[in-house]
Amino acid sequence: MPTKVAPDPSRRSETARRAILAAALDLVGKVGYAKLTIEGIAQAAGVGKQTIYRWWPSKGPLFFDAFLTLAGDGEAAALPDTGDLAADLKLVLSATVDELNDLGFDQTMRALHTEIVHDPNLAADYATRLDGPMRELKKERLRSAQRAGQLAEDVDLDVAVDLIWGPVLNRWLHRTAPLTSDYACQVVDTALRGLQPR
Amino acid sequence: MPTKVAPDPSRRSETARRAILAAALDLVGKVGYAKLTIEGIAQAAGVGKQTIYRWWPSKGPLFFDAFLTLAGDGEAAALPDTGDLAADLKLVLSATVDELNDLGFDQTMRALHTEIVHDPNLAADYATRLDGPMRELKKERLRSAQRAGQLAEDVDLDVAVDLIWGPVLNRWLHRTAPLTSDYACQVVDTALRGLQPR
Repeated sequence: MPTKVAPDPSRRSETARRAILAAALDLVGKVGYAKLTIEGIAQAAGVGKQTIYRWWPSKGPLFFDAFLTLAGDGEAAALPDTGDLAADLKLVLSATVDELNDLGFDQTMRALHTEIVHDPNLAADYATRLDGPMRELKKERLRSAQRAGQLAEDVDLDVAVDLIWGPVLNRWLHRTAPLTSDYACQVVDTALRGLQPR
Repeated sequence: MPTKVAPDPSRRSETARRAILAAALDLVGKVGYAKLTIEGIAQAAGVGKQTIYRWWPSKGPLFFDAFLTLAGDGEAAALPDTGDLAADLKLVLSATVDELNDLGFDQTMRALHTEIVHDPNLAADYATRLDGPMRELKKERLRSAQRAGQLAEDVDLDVAVDLIWGPVLNRWLHRTAPLTSDYACQVVDTALRGLQPR
């Protein structure tokens, strides 16, 4: 009779964790964030509620971790750098527009966004784990543009990031007008050139 | 015996409507939007639930009307026009920063914002009744700046409004950094001058 091999507890844990995060993403697409419950996630993932509460105090932080797996676990790639700042920014922002116009991603992003708006702790987590690293990559691209003489030396890079990325996010959030790649390109051109006559 | 005078039904209606809207604003500050209920509002306003349902189908549209009373019933004033575009924009944006940093206004705005993000009908209402008229006033000020030669002739005014107002709204929503008047002024200067070297 072969000796029974005890399952590796850390691997089992990781499998359960992944199943829980996947179930949360799957469920939010079906029922929306408001009806997402720890109980529902546990059932869909085939684990007990206690397993979930061992890792997460509530559905907000759990959902945020799930979202991070969707965003590639925070391993964001550097922005393209072809030497043409405007073209690179238009490429990146157009990809963002496509993502935000994807219905599944849209719903997940809106759910995460709502949590961030109402929960200062989650907002801090978002700033540290997602917005911060992404912002650093954006600023890295802008620094390269400064070295290439395509961006003014004295521009505050945080303000620059806000000017370039903010309008697209706002139009998506408030649905004030269709979010298109054309709009994103117009924002890039206008931010680079400025509103004053040259 | 004096003849009894029947109360004016339209005036009574208006009084009830005002009481309901005031109760909604008062309650949202105490319990938050998630726990705001038609029942709670009815109780606080001293009316029956049926009275509320006669005017509003659910708490979203009711809350939006309540917010509009806070915002002066949509009778927004024209932006200041001293002839100095940068100074006028900084004044307006600094006032917005002060409003958003007011705890009561902050909570009400976040509640409204969440509803808009998740409810396309309310978003359309918001665009028509609040964002649209406000945006028109902003564009009117920018047109005046174009006539004065302070804004490029070929700038798309909607994009200009998004560049000037979007970053402040985003920073407030996501709490990525403290929202200050200094930041608002920096945004104005950077948007006007542009990111490229002049």
